[in-house]
Amino acid sequence: MQNFDYRNPTHIVFGQDRLAELDQLVPQDAKVLVLYGGGSVKRFGTLDKVLAGLGNRTVVEFAGIEPNPQFDTLMKAVHIARDEQVDFLLAVGGGSVMDGTKFIAAAVPFEGDEATLLQHGFAPLPIDRALPLATVATLPATGSEMNMGAVVSYQGGKFPVMSPLLFPQFSVLDPSLTFSLPPVQVANGVVDAFVHVVEQYVTYPADAMVQDRTAEGILKSLIEVGPVTLAEPENYNARANLMWSATCALNGFIGSGVPHDWATHMIGHELTALFGVDHAQSLAIVLPSLWALRKDKKRAKLLQYAERVWDITEGTDDERIDAAIAKTRAFFESLGVKTRLADYGIGRDQIDSVVQALEAHGMVALSETGDLTLDVSRAILEHAHS
Amino acid sequence: MQNFDYRNPTHIVFGQDRLAELDQLVPQDAKVLVLYGGGSVKRFGTLDKVLAGLGNRTVVEFAGIEPNPQFDTLMKAVHIARDEQVDFLLAVGGGSVMDGTKFIAAAVPFEGDEATLLQHGFAPLPIDRALPLATVATLPATGSEMNMGAVVSYQGGKFPVMSPLLFPQFSVLDPSLTFSLPPVQVANGVVDAFVHVVEQYVTYPADAMVQDRTAEGILKSLIEVGPVTLAEPENYNARANLMWSATCALNGFIGSGVPHDWATHMIGHELTALFGVDHAQSLAIVLPSLWALRKDKKRAKLLQYAERVWDITEGTDDERIDAAIAKTRAFFESLGVKTRLADYGIGRDQIDSVVQALEAHGMVALSETGDLTLDVSRAILEHAHS
Repeated sequence: MQNFDYRNPTHIVFGQDRLAELDQLVPQDAKVLVLYGGGSVKRFGTLDKVLAGLGNRTVVEFAGIEPNPQFDTLMKAVHIARDEQVDFLLAVGGGSVMDGTKFIAAAVPFEGDEATLLQHGFAPLPIDRALPLATVATLPATGSEMNMGAVVSYQGGKFPVMSPLLFPQFSVLDPSLTFSLPPVQVANGVVDAFVHVVEQYVTYPADAMVQDRTAEGILKSLIEVGPVTLAEPENYNARANLMWSATCALNGFIGSGVPHDWATHMIGHELTALFGVDHAQSLAIVLPSLWALRKDKKRAKLLQYAERVWDITEGTDDERIDAAIAKTRAFFESLGVKTRLADYGIGRDQIDSVVQALEAHGMVALSETGDLTLDVSRAILEHAHS
Repeated sequence: MQNFDYRNPTHIVFGQDRLAELDQLVPQDAKVLVLYGGGSVKRFGTLDKVLAGLGNRTVVEFAGIEPNPQFDTLMKAVHIARDEQVDFLLAVGGGSVMDGTKFIAAAVPFEGDEATLLQHGFAPLPIDRALPLATVATLPATGSEMNMGAVVSYQGGKFPVMSPLLFPQFSVLDPSLTFSLPPVQVANGVVDAFVHVVEQYVTYPADAMVQDRTAEGILKSLIEVGPVTLAEPENYNARANLMWSATCALNGFIGSGVPHDWATHMIGHELTALFGVDHAQSLAIVLPSLWALRKDKKRAKLLQYAERVWDITEGTDDERIDAAIAKTRAFFESLGVKTRLADYGIGRDQIDSVVQALEAHGMVALSETGDLTLDVSRAILEHAHS
């Protein structure tokens, strides 16, 4: 096992009918900026419950944080937060709203050019304060509700933002608030959580037994619960298991003491930025091809994945790995998430532009071994085409 | 899944050669009370490394916290902490030292009779402050390094002490500091961690997929790593996996959203208090017999345990359950931890005294279903005799 630090102070408030507890969870004297995306949190009544939970506190609202939240949009909220002197941020929504709120929390007290906050990659931001934030998570997918990271879109790129100051103080996770999600978002959430797990698990062996077993447990849970929760959106237990799986996929626990990949995310981010495919769709496109071409680098863990997650025990090593990759692709497709560039109308002639974007963003030595070069990214994209 | 709150702010500092980081981890201006047990942390050099890590800070030492830490011993440390006006507690040792330190942290600023802190069972203490504490964990077993609970011995009983104020600020877990442990303590640690898991897992189904899979993963890890780490005490990876398994067994994660039993612990506590058997030995005595007599209450989860943890798939339901119980007993015995009262020289005629102690301590309606009465406890002890 590698040396590691694990620290995650977020208070998870999980279950049905927990929004009334906002009154105890948010500081009594707080002036609260409530942030959300489109109209769905209004339409389905979640916002009303949130506002009721906040009681007599002074509340300012900011709507319109879009998928893949844009720096320019978030800066509008930053100015409002400063002008109104709010002292607590409450994100109500999915990963984009939560991520955007984290950036806002860092940017409000920041003295300087806020765009520079996007220049630190996966290193912690050089900040010593941030507004306190919390979330009401309405979309099981990104895990943002229980981690210190965010991704912000800016000038055609997607940029990570990390700081221990950006852990939500608390996150309310009520599965029943997600019943009204469109199926495509639920399917995307399953894929997103799945890929979060394998980015931290299908690498090279580090002899981290509990982390591996937990990763496998989350994957098996997603495989079991994904189709159920799509078919039965109001099945509380199924949705609850999806929701908690998605949170646990990226709260730092399974990633402690093990190598991380994240190449699928880095390549996928460019697909989203260039062609507007959903984040989870981009992952579903890249992952199976990345594994097919990086079989040797990931051999031991792909074999473990094949056996423990998919119960594949017959055949040669290569056959078992190929079968596991095929099962993974079929799982994504069974949820309705397509896995080929061509499925999204992206031509082979557009692969150049992806490689150029990767180069422009410094993504020239990706993966757990740091040797996934632009040539390999190109080959993965070629393989992923059709 | 049941509604739950999960919050665990302890910073885990895991790995080799981390003690030097104490200098960054402990507040620079702290006056530190370092607490430990017998001489082993001195003999094997851990204490010297801790003191070196604390640099120029003023340090007071308190030695002699015994296994099953006694109220009277801990109160001596409380008086020293008050007299010396220390403002940070650092436990260096195993579960007893960590548990004792938690009690001291609560007791030092407490105004009133400190013995009343033992009267709140599993409810949070009615306190609003405690000294900050941290740990250097030298024995993988209790999980105290990453939870808010402690058990203190007082007047022949063992009493839980719980408060969110008692989470360690940080815990340094260096597996190599445990290489010198006597084998009996390592074996006890494996059993202790194992039983912590099943107290939260072998109950009744609550459809908590990730929690169940993680519990099973910890159990499988303990089964795999237990014999290895006993045979090869300086095998770093084996010891690291034992250590992290033990921490994860009782940090709240697998217990979120599921019913809890703890009857094995409650009955076992009396065996330790009356006869001085080690905590883990008491659990190894009670658990197999409790399961044998509570087969119907735990049927579904025992079947799941049989299949997923021990790969038992042949036979009738009862045969599979019996096989799983036999495997569990054999596992404990294979580690050198005996599983019968008679093995510890406790006669059938002494069972009465255990039942009386349970009654005196109010342990009359135990388990996840609250129907494990004194009669059932008696039957379990009879079954466990020989």
